[in-house]
Amino acid sequence: MKFNKSKRSVRRPKAAGLPPGTLVHIGEKKAETIRITVMDYDEQGFQEKQVASIEECFPFKQTPTVTWINIDGLHRVDIIEKLGEQFDLHPLILEDILNTEQRPKLEDFDKYIFIVLKMLSYDDQKQTVQAEQVSLVLGSNFVISFQERVGDVFDEVRDRIRNAKGRIRKMGPDYLAYALLDAVVDNYFTVLEKFGEKIEAAEEELVANPTEKTLKQIHLVKRELLSVRKSVWPLRELISALQRGESGLIQETTGIYLRDMYDHTIQVIDTVESFRDMVSGMLDIYLSSISNKMNAVMKVLTIIATIFIPLTFIAGVYGMNFKYMPELQWRWGYGLILVVMGIVAVIMLFYFRKKKWL
Amino acid sequence: MKFNKSKRSVRRPKAAGLPPGTLVHIGEKKAETIRITVMDYDEQGFQEKQVASIEECFPFKQTPTVTWINIDGLHRVDIIEKLGEQFDLHPLILEDILNTEQRPKLEDFDKYIFIVLKMLSYDDQKQTVQAEQVSLVLGSNFVISFQERVGDVFDEVRDRIRNAKGRIRKMGPDYLAYALLDAVVDNYFTVLEKFGEKIEAAEEELVANPTEKTLKQIHLVKRELLSVRKSVWPLRELISALQRGESGLIQETTGIYLRDMYDHTIQVIDTVESFRDMVSGMLDIYLSSISNKMNAVMKVLTIIATIFIPLTFIAGVYGMNFKYMPELQWRWGYGLILVVMGIVAVIMLFYFRKKKWL
Amino acid sequence: MKFNKSKRSVRRPKAAGLPPGTLVHIGEKKAETIRITVMDYDEQGFQEKQVASIEECFPFKQTPTVTWINIDGLHRVDIIEKLGEQFDLHPLILEDILNTEQRPKLEDFDKYIFIVLKMLSYDDQKQTVQAEQVSLVLGSNFVISFQERVGDVFDEVRDRIRNAKGRIRKMGPDYLAYALLDAVVDNYFTVLEKFGEKIEAAEEELVANPTEKTLKQIHLVKRELLSVRKSVWPLRELISALQRGESGLIQETTGIYLRDMYDHTIQVIDTVESFRDMVSGMLDIYLSSISNKMNAVMKVLTIIATIFIPLTFIAGVYGMNFKYMPELQWRWGYGLILVVMGIVAVIMLFYFRKKKWL
Amino acid sequence: MKFNKSKRSVRRPKAAGLPPGTLVHIGEKKAETIRITVMDYDEQGFQEKQVASIEECFPFKQTPTVTWINIDGLHRVDIIEKLGEQFDLHPLILEDILNTEQRPKLEDFDKYIFIVLKMLSYDDQKQTVQAEQVSLVLGSNFVISFQERVGDVFDEVRDRIRNAKGRIRKMGPDYLAYALLDAVVDNYFTVLEKFGEKIEAAEEELVANPTEKTLKQIHLVKRELLSVRKSVWPLRELISALQRGESGLIQETTGIYLRDMYDHTIQVIDTVESFRDMVSGMLDIYLSSISNKMNAVMKVLTIIATIFIPLTFIAGVYGMNFKYMPELQWRWGYGLILVVMGIVAVIMLFYFRKKKWL
Amino acid sequence: MKFNKSKRSVRRPKAAGLPPGTLVHIGEKKAETIRITVMDYDEQGFQEKQVASIEECFPFKQTPTVTWINIDGLHRVDIIEKLGEQFDLHPLILEDILNTEQRPKLEDFDKYIFIVLKMLSYDDQKQTVQAEQVSLVLGSNFVISFQERVGDVFDEVRDRIRNAKGRIRKMGPDYLAYALLDAVVDNYFTVLEKFGEKIEAAEEELVANPTEKTLKQIHLVKRELLSVRKSVWPLRELISALQRGESGLIQETTGIYLRDMYDHTIQVIDTVESFRDMVSGMLDIYLSSISNKMNAVMKVLTIIATIFIPLTFIAGVYGMNFKYMPELQWRWGYGLILVVMGIVAVIMLFYFRKKKWL
Repeated sequence: MKFNKSKRSVRRPKAAGLPPGTLVHIGEKKAETIRITVMDYDEQGFQEKQVASIEECFPFKQTPTVTWINIDGLHRVDIIEKLGEQFDLHPLILEDILNTEQRPKLEDFDKYIFIVLKMLSYDDQKQTVQAEQVSLVLGSNFVISFQERVGDVFDEVRDRIRNAKGRIRKMGPDYLAYALLDAVVDNYFTVLEKFGEKIEAAEEELVANPTEKTLKQIHLVKRELLSVRKSVWPLRELISALQRGESGLIQETTGIYLRDMYDHTIQVIDTVESFRDMVSGMLDIYLSSISNKMNAVMKVLTIIATIFIPLTFIAGVYGMNFKYMPELQWRWGYGLILVVMGIVAVIMLFYFRKKKWL
Repeated sequence: MKFNKSKRSVRRPKAAGLPPGTLVHIGEKKAETIRITVMDYDEQGFQEKQVASIEECFPFKQTPTVTWINIDGLHRVDIIEKLGEQFDLHPLILEDILNTEQRPKLEDFDKYIFIVLKMLSYDDQKQTVQAEQVSLVLGSNFVISFQERVGDVFDEVRDRIRNAKGRIRKMGPDYLAYALLDAVVDNYFTVLEKFGEKIEAAEEELVANPTEKTLKQIHLVKRELLSVRKSVWPLRELISALQRGESGLIQETTGIYLRDMYDHTIQVIDTVESFRDMVSGMLDIYLSSISNKMNAVMKVLTIIATIFIPLTFIAGVYGMNFKYMPELQWRWGYGLILVVMGIVAVIMLFYFRKKKWL
Repeated sequence: MKFNKSKRSVRRPKAAGLPPGTLVHIGEKKAETIRITVMDYDEQGFQEKQVASIEECFPFKQTPTVTWINIDGLHRVDIIEKLGEQFDLHPLILEDILNTEQRPKLEDFDKYIFIVLKMLSYDDQKQTVQAEQVSLVLGSNFVISFQERVGDVFDEVRDRIRNAKGRIRKMGPDYLAYALLDAVVDNYFTVLEKFGEKIEAAEEELVANPTEKTLKQIHLVKRELLSVRKSVWPLRELISALQRGESGLIQETTGIYLRDMYDHTIQVIDTVESFRDMVSGMLDIYLSSISNKMNAVMKVLTIIATIFIPLTFIAGVYGMNFKYMPELQWRWGYGLILVVMGIVAVIMLFYFRKKKWL
Repeated sequence: MKFNKSKRSVRRPKAAGLPPGTLVHIGEKKAETIRITVMDYDEQGFQEKQVASIEECFPFKQTPTVTWINIDGLHRVDIIEKLGEQFDLHPLILEDILNTEQRPKLEDFDKYIFIVLKMLSYDDQKQTVQAEQVSLVLGSNFVISFQERVGDVFDEVRDRIRNAKGRIRKMGPDYLAYALLDAVVDNYFTVLEKFGEKIEAAEEELVANPTEKTLKQIHLVKRELLSVRKSVWPLRELISALQRGESGLIQETTGIYLRDMYDHTIQVIDTVESFRDMVSGMLDIYLSSISNKMNAVMKVLTIIATIFIPLTFIAGVYGMNFKYMPELQWRWGYGLILVVMGIVAVIMLFYFRKKKWL
Repeated sequence: MKFNKSKRSVRRPKAAGLPPGTLVHIGEKKAETIRITVMDYDEQGFQEKQVASIEECFPFKQTPTVTWINIDGLHRVDIIEKLGEQFDLHPLILEDILNTEQRPKLEDFDKYIFIVLKMLSYDDQKQTVQAEQVSLVLGSNFVISFQERVGDVFDEVRDRIRNAKGRIRKMGPDYLAYALLDAVVDNYFTVLEKFGEKIEAAEEELVANPTEKTLKQIHLVKRELLSVRKSVWPLRELISALQRGESGLIQETTGIYLRDMYDHTIQVIDTVESFRDMVSGMLDIYLSSISNKMNAVMKVLTIIATIFIPLTFIAGVYGMNFKYMPELQWRWGYGLILVVMGIVAVIMLFYFRKKKWL
């Protein structure tokens, strides 16, 4: 039985012993190179390019159009640092972006809102859920997003910008931030569907042939649900905070979309909780089915043994070598004793059946 | 053992990857055709007709009378869309109406209130509870209701309008909305009664002859209760929000009716919780009764075996072929040994009885 | 094993499908006839009479004195209806009075306060707790009380009015309502004492001779406690609401009495919770004592069997019919083998004792 | 097994059926005579005397100095009544003082604050915790305290007054009330230490030799903790209410001492909760250790039996009386069969060892 | 099995029976000598010295620079007392500093803030977590810190002051207090990592070879987690109170750092809760794996026994000494009966395999 590495559970918020605000990348290095892309758009048009150095993004800061800078890969501390300087981000924010062991959270600095959340993906090969950290900074005319590696969850948003699908080009950066968050939350459903299939498979196995392996699988699912839960629960409060619209950065028209997303988050949480209920119900069924099976074995075997024990005793009696045992001399002694044995066996079977032990 | 499809538990709030507000019908197509009916009434009179195209309903929007448009069947996206345009409904609302995997909720747009809830029905054949989504839009002079299929729960309300029974014709659209919600909540009691009968049947089986099938049945009931609970719990908050009367659309005179309905909802929740308590009590009884039964079997059988083991040993001793075994030559050796065996058996039985093992 | 009818748990709030406010008596008809009594008093004097028709009560409504109308028996809908009209009670209130499946609750209409609660009584014969619904309407100069059958819980209050005992004659209708509620709450202690005795009896049985019957009894007590709890918990909030004194109908001087009653209610709830704790502790003890008993049986029996098995084997060896078995010819072979058997038995017993299995 | 009398759990708040405010002493009569002591002090001096009749205390009421009247023993209703009249205490307060089955609580009448709490003591002989009720009335220049019997917990406070130790003589009656409460809370730690020792002893027994007696002891400790908990939990809210300092009777300078005491109360509660955790952990260990022990017995015994069963079969085969059994005639048949038996036994032992069953 | 001394759980807040504010050192004496160090700094420069007598620190109180007095070792009551006098600390604060059994807490006296918390360290030899109490007093221009023994957790902060690393020299005493708290919280992660390793080791043992020792280890870890939890939970509220910034002593610029630390605290709590979940999952696995193992033993052994019992019976039958047993005389009787026995054995094996008991 192999558990997820429990080491993962100790999430260091920073390199211990360093002063707060020191920038160090903490976590696995998941991407080889860093990819920086910029999209700049308004209702009239849009511009998109992949830049080699972060400085190329800075001119967009001045334009009144919505600017979206996306950075895939976090191991180049210097890039994050320059970006932070240019956009006037607090050093603690940069520290949080670089440290991929954050708990989902929202921090509202008047000039910008900082959001950390977890993107989940299901690794079909390892059969486990992977979590990747996504950070967003929403300013008055820009959104900066950070991912641990190149991913495709945001592609659909890019598409909508390119093709002016929906209202995205007509709305401000807050709607863009919403669209990105929504893409992440939407993705949870895909992961949960995989989970659902896994649970169903385990259930079918549980019914057909429960083995110790089934048990371990159920325990693994249970543990993974725990970790999914930890990524998802804080989201509720996070989106609720956004939706309350206390920040001037969120337009009122975006509010209803956030409320909608909030409902989806509740649904994700509900589903996770149902899964947990189902899994613990399965554990109960497993245990009682194992014990039922064992009981069935023991019962039948003990019954067999019990029937033969008195018979063996009778045979033992007539195997004794006493000189004077009149029965031994009878012509029909042997036949008689076989009949007696048969009757004893039948009586016991009747008794067992009457007691419903058979 | 067959569980409800767990796939159901992953409720997709929308087709993933589409921009919010895209109208797609999500869920099973439960009705073949769409039926649209309109009722228009005030204290003086009423008008009722079934219309072929949704446009026929629009004139009623202008009248000062209360208009109730009911739509059974959700698979015709274009109809919903036209209705939405005409009544100025937000695209996200339309999306929610079309997606039958919503969690019960209330959203208050100043001009109208949007309510989603679940209608439960007990399928006697499949012996399972079915949930159908009902959406309501309450405006200043209209109520629009959406059902997944043609049903008869609202017939009683229609009757009251036709016959001016009760106060419904004297009240506004808020009372109509209340009447419709009330019909749904009332219906829960019918479903819960069926549940009660099912639990009672399982209980009787549990007492008479608990088998593994009983266990599975109990687990099924438990799981169904979980899903009923999920439909019912959010209702509490929903009706409470309505009743607090913060919306201008709810007249004060309707408040008391809502409070009454709130009490009924609490009662539904109470009943569901009691059922859950009863079911888990039944699980405990099942487990301990199975183990008691097993213990009883084991005990009696082991006692039988234990009595005969020493006797068989004695018989074995006198079955040995030693040349010099004086007892074997005794005239009454055989009789004596039978008596000794009898005494041993009686002593053991006495001991067992004294220890209360018999 | 006989459970309380689970059907009881589905409390219909009204006849399904009827418009709200339709008056139908729901519940068992517990009384044959309806008895209506009126008491009218102030500090100077009092008047008491049993009336045949409800109309005789109406004149008292005008007097400035405190009027208490008590109605035992709920099956005469017309009486309730007339009373409701005269005292201007909302139809939903009347519906609630007639439906004896209410949850305890308080509703504050400015002109009057409506209270529903449960009176518990212990049926010594059936050994179960019975719940009866009591409704109170407290107006500016009157209290109307409704019971399901003629009872004697309020007799003590009547006595105090007749004899001007305590301060009841000096106080207003709010104090009368308090006195009636207090009589009901007081009565809970009597029921709980019976419960305490029942639990104690079950405990003694548990210690002396735990059988499956004990288990079922414990489960029954547990279930009854659940239902008592449901009657008692809402009371807490109810009295707390009364005591906060937001209604103009409650005098400040009555406040302290309500606070006192609130404490009593907390005590009732505490006691019920303690009982629940005790009962579940008893279940644990039962289960472990049953399993200990089983273990003891199995252990001793298995030990007996195990000692004899090797001995029987030795006897078997010398029962073989090989032609050349030198020991069989020895003069003291038989004695020797008996000694060997004895030694084997003693060694095994020593081993078992050393291992503390004996 | 002897449980605490469960009857105790039903705490009657008053003699049922009496009007509120009727003075009756409820509870065990724990003291033979009533002892009344008065201390009167200010920064300059102090006066202390034991009085025979309560009237001797009344003159102190007028003095501006702090007056502390302590009454040990509650069965003389008339004394309490006179005191109540003199100090203008509400009849319900007197009722509460006399009824020793109160839940700890605080009631703030503007002119005075009434506090009920439980003093715990550990009875070394009966090995149980005893609860005694202490009531305090704090007025603008007096404190009246009531105990069920003569105790020594307050002696230390008396000492401090006599010797002007600490700041007690410089402070008002609120500080005196604090000092008395503090003495009671301090005393809890002594009781909890005893509890700690008891739990430790049970733990050691659990490790050394767990018997059914250990189980019952653990259950008893668990139940006692429940009752200690009931005395302690309400204290938290009580002291918190005092400390919020809404009453004009509490000086600001006393506030910090109350906050300190509040911390102590939290510590008491924490300790009780830890004990509960420890005890339920012990129950788990007990159960699994009993079942481990049983398993060990069963395993070894079954192994012994299983080895001998095939051997006995072999012996049985050669005990058969067939005329033609060639092996029986072999010269070395007997030796051979013994060797075969030995080999079978060794193989089985090897198999068991390989399977780690030995 | 050795539990942590449960005595530890009873934390005496003070020497019972002493007036509040009496200074007594409660707890183990962990250091031999007391070490007092002073650091005094501002942006321009810093001064650091180890002083022999506490009086040498007092001059720094007047300077506008930030002064940090650190005291390692608490057994010299006189030193604490002098310090208290000089810095005008409330006697209860001094009592709390000296008593090392405090619960983490924050008290806000307008002139200074008093903070108590627990420093955890993992003792590799004893394999247990040690808690040491750290107290902080934050004034307008000074911080005083108290530790139970000389430690190195604060060295890193000293370093930052010496080398003007980070912003510490530019900020006030509130930032210093933050830095010290942060050092303690950071340290928790180190301890939790050790815990993680311990749990992982226990898990591996659980998988490889679960013994009763594993069980006890799991229980120990569970209990230690409980005590870590008690140190960590109150921290949440403590830091939250600091961060809300109601005190004038906390600068706004420090607020964001406190918020950051708050997140870390939540992470610590989350990790502890995960560990608890993991440990209780391990307990479940242990129990079911032990019972599975037992079942496997019982099953195989019982099957062996059951196969031989009928065979032994057959052998017994032909071991009987009846005079007339025709089979005994048959030429191939012996061979035939061996064949019959073989067939019976094979049939039983087939049956067992069909039933999946093998």
